Amino acid sequence: MHIILLSGGSGQRLWPLSNNVRSKQFIKIFKKEDGTYESMVQRVYRQIRAVDADATVTIATSKSQISALCNQLGSDVAISPEPARRDTFPAISLAVSYLVDVQGVDRNEPVVVCPVDPYVNEDYFEALRNLSDLAAAGAANLSVMGIEPTYPSEKYGYVIPRSKDQVAEVETFREKPDAKTAAEYIARGALWNAGVFAFKASYVLDKAHELMNFTDYDDLAAKYETVKKISFDYAVCEKEPKIQVMRFAGQWKDMGTWNTLTEAMEEPAIGNAVLNDTCSNTNVVNELNLPILCMGCRDMVIAASPEGILVSDKNQSSYIKPYVEQMDQQVMFAEKSWGSFTVLDVENESLTILVTLKPGHHMNYHSHEHRDEVWNIISGSGRTIVDGMEQKVHAGDVITMQAGCRHMILADTELRVIEVQLGRDISVHDKKKYALPAGI
Amino acid sequence: MHIILLSGGSGQRLWPLSNNVRSKQFIKIFKKEDGTYESMVQRVYRQIRAVDADATVTIATSKSQISALCNQLGSDVAISPEPARRDTFPAISLAVSYLVDVQGVDRNEPVVVCPVDPYVNEDYFEALRNLSDLAAAGAANLSVMGIEPTYPSEKYGYVIPRSKDQVAEVETFREKPDAKTAAEYIARGALWNAGVFAFKASYVLDKAHELMNFTDYDDLAAKYETVKKISFDYAVCEKEPKIQVMRFAGQWKDMGTWNTLTEAMEEPAIGNAVLNDTCSNTNVVNELNLPILCMGCRDMVIAASPEGILVSDKNQSSYIKPYVEQMDQQVMFAEKSWGSFTVLDVENESLTILVTLKPGHHMNYHSHEHRDEVWNIISGSGRTIVDGMEQKVHAGDVITMQAGCRHMILADTELRVIEVQLGRDISVHDKKKYALPAGI
Repeated sequence: MHIILLSGGSGQRLWPLSNNVRSKQFIKIFKKEDGTYESMVQRVYRQIRAVDADATVTIATSKSQISALCNQLGSDVAISPEPARRDTFPAISLAVSYLVDVQGVDRNEPVVVCPVDPYVNEDYFEALRNLSDLAAAGAANLSVMGIEPTYPSEKYGYVIPRSKDQVAEVETFREKPDAKTAAEYIARGALWNAGVFAFKASYVLDKAHELMNFTDYDDLAAKYETVKKISFDYAVCEKEPKIQVMRFAGQWKDMGTWNTLTEAMEEPAIGNAVLNDTCSNTNVVNELNLPILCMGCRDMVIAASPEGILVSDKNQSSYIKPYVEQMDQQVMFAEKSWGSFTVLDVENESLTILVTLKPGHHMNYHSHEHRDEVWNIISGSGRTIVDGMEQKVHAGDVITMQAGCRHMILADTELRVIEVQLGRDISVHDKKKYALPAGI
Repeated sequence: MHIILLSGGSGQRLWPLSNNVRSKQFIKIFKKEDGTYESMVQRVYRQIRAVDADATVTIATSKSQISALCNQLGSDVAISPEPARRDTFPAISLAVSYLVDVQGVDRNEPVVVCPVDPYVNEDYFEALRNLSDLAAAGAANLSVMGIEPTYPSEKYGYVIPRSKDQVAEVETFREKPDAKTAAEYIARGALWNAGVFAFKASYVLDKAHELMNFTDYDDLAAKYETVKKISFDYAVCEKEPKIQVMRFAGQWKDMGTWNTLTEAMEEPAIGNAVLNDTCSNTNVVNELNLPILCMGCRDMVIAASPEGILVSDKNQSSYIKPYVEQMDQQVMFAEKSWGSFTVLDVENESLTILVTLKPGHHMNYHSHEHRDEVWNIISGSGRTIVDGMEQKVHAGDVITMQAGCRHMILADTELRVIEVQLGRDISVHDKKKYALPAGI
């Protein structure tokens, strides 16, 4: 099975755990059997492997997510990066083109496209394999998954089938209706559109060449910014007469708001938190190194990260977006391919961060125009390169770097560094990257 | 007027803003006319000065509070430090002895003793002056203040007067009763015991010499740890036949719990916080550099400091004590006479703190046996002395100190320093102090 996972954009709705640089699929909130936690993307990736060890998984995502994906899934994960945001049709076309032109998948093989963030069990991925087999059989050009609805939701699109068979021809798609219309659809056997499609690679490639002028993957990637924004639903589904839908009745939860996300939590609290016995239906996710004490909280979600603290009634939490948009959103925590950083202190002319590098990893070779930096190595061992000079470092060493000098740090073991930045105009944009020094 | 302010012990009830090293009277929560905030002790000190510019104010407190008192009231505040905790009779005796033996107050002058943490207006301090005048007039040996009760509280002791006159003889004192008994007391004209006493200095000194064997202030301070623990109520009030009570009907609030403290807040939030319009009767005190967003919170208090985060129903908040006692209470923030520090990062073998020194101030000259330290100066200018070597420092300078070396830092302007501590056994107890180097 070839799966393209669509890893969507930045999220405000799960603030302070999601933000401009961290999407909800990267929040480690789901408990594994070994007691540690995994994110949605880690969970989905693991579940696919469990159902089909030979599946090829390609993640279609924006450039800004590559670091977090490599951090969470390992650096050999297959990624089809979108050079710009152009909606789902160009994104899926680019990923299918990547599969065929870069990975050498046969044009006649089936491909399944699925969002990265459903909260599901393994039966869902078994259903994806069935959907892939349907696409291979070729009775229709497009096979979609339809979720058996549990209530007349206004949040989802609907697929209306011609029959109540397990696999049926699609009569039509309907965008998010009001509750009354949704109830009528459901009475007619309609299903929720989960955004899951299967098709032969050639089908989407042909559509792509029809609508966009390109030769192969490299060419499409190069001119990606110039292609028209258009959704897969609009460009393909609505115009295709031969579509079939396969029913799925297993668990399928949309983790889009704190209210729904906390339903998937196996315990009231993740992180350092105490809820006294007068709390009820309350969940805490604490990513800070501070204890949270909750007393007498009812129907609440409390989430804390270096970005901020949310204390909200669960129902109210779905109205969070405008409040988060008004906030001054300095990035206080980020996962990078080489590790992570957390902002510890912000002053007018200095910024102090904790940098953690994974063993064997290194940051870019770079310089800053407007700030000096000091590295205080607090644990581990590695090497620094400053203006070409390599030096072994370990806990207790201090390296000072003037503005303009080129520098990087490499971790031999896990390396933790307190980095003090000093200057009048400290900005993430003040960064010049260079080719790695010889020998690295 | 001579006032002795009793500045009581550490507080758990207002966690995370009070803790083992910061008592509730030091939390800056009360808005001044200029828009800044002051603590209870600052408010009381300012109010006394407003009512009686010539009042001498002596603060009876434990050694652990001296730094915070100097930080908040200035270093020329008169403090009578208790060498150990020996309850209120030895504490008041020591402070009166300090007034007479150290400050040269005449033995016949009246002295008023009052707790440092009532939330009151200036009329309360005018009443204290009247109480002082009553003590000077000498119709009774002891004059106490009685608060007109507003409800049959089980939290306070009661003073039962012989008449309903403004000033009356005291018939008896009663410890905290149940609500029914309290109502009976109130029907008989009883008043709340606010812990405010006035007397001639000689009266308490004579009692002190009766009960404790000492010559003068220095001698009592030297043998303080050996004296018996006993309360002023038990040692003096209960045995004294000639006591009068003066009624006080002005505002008097006990700020002992979050529930009562938030009643004194003039606005819903202090610090970086947003409450949406579905919040009601909710207060936020945020001492962190992170935004707090509250949605749909009803009757809640949310308090955040480097020690932790409390999210509590207001009524529930009075049951906080056992939960706080169970917490691992590393001190994350402290006010010192020279400034303050905040813990930024805690690792197995390192601790990173932000140190702020006030202009003209300096820390002790000291060394550590088990840790190296690095000072990253991030703003301001000053001088460091390391093993006797003085050096001018300013933003951008880095000073490294090996375990064992003697060091201190002096601020010429406000100085901010990221201090990185490195070692296996980092502890506040690993500190040896030395006499200041010559010339400091």
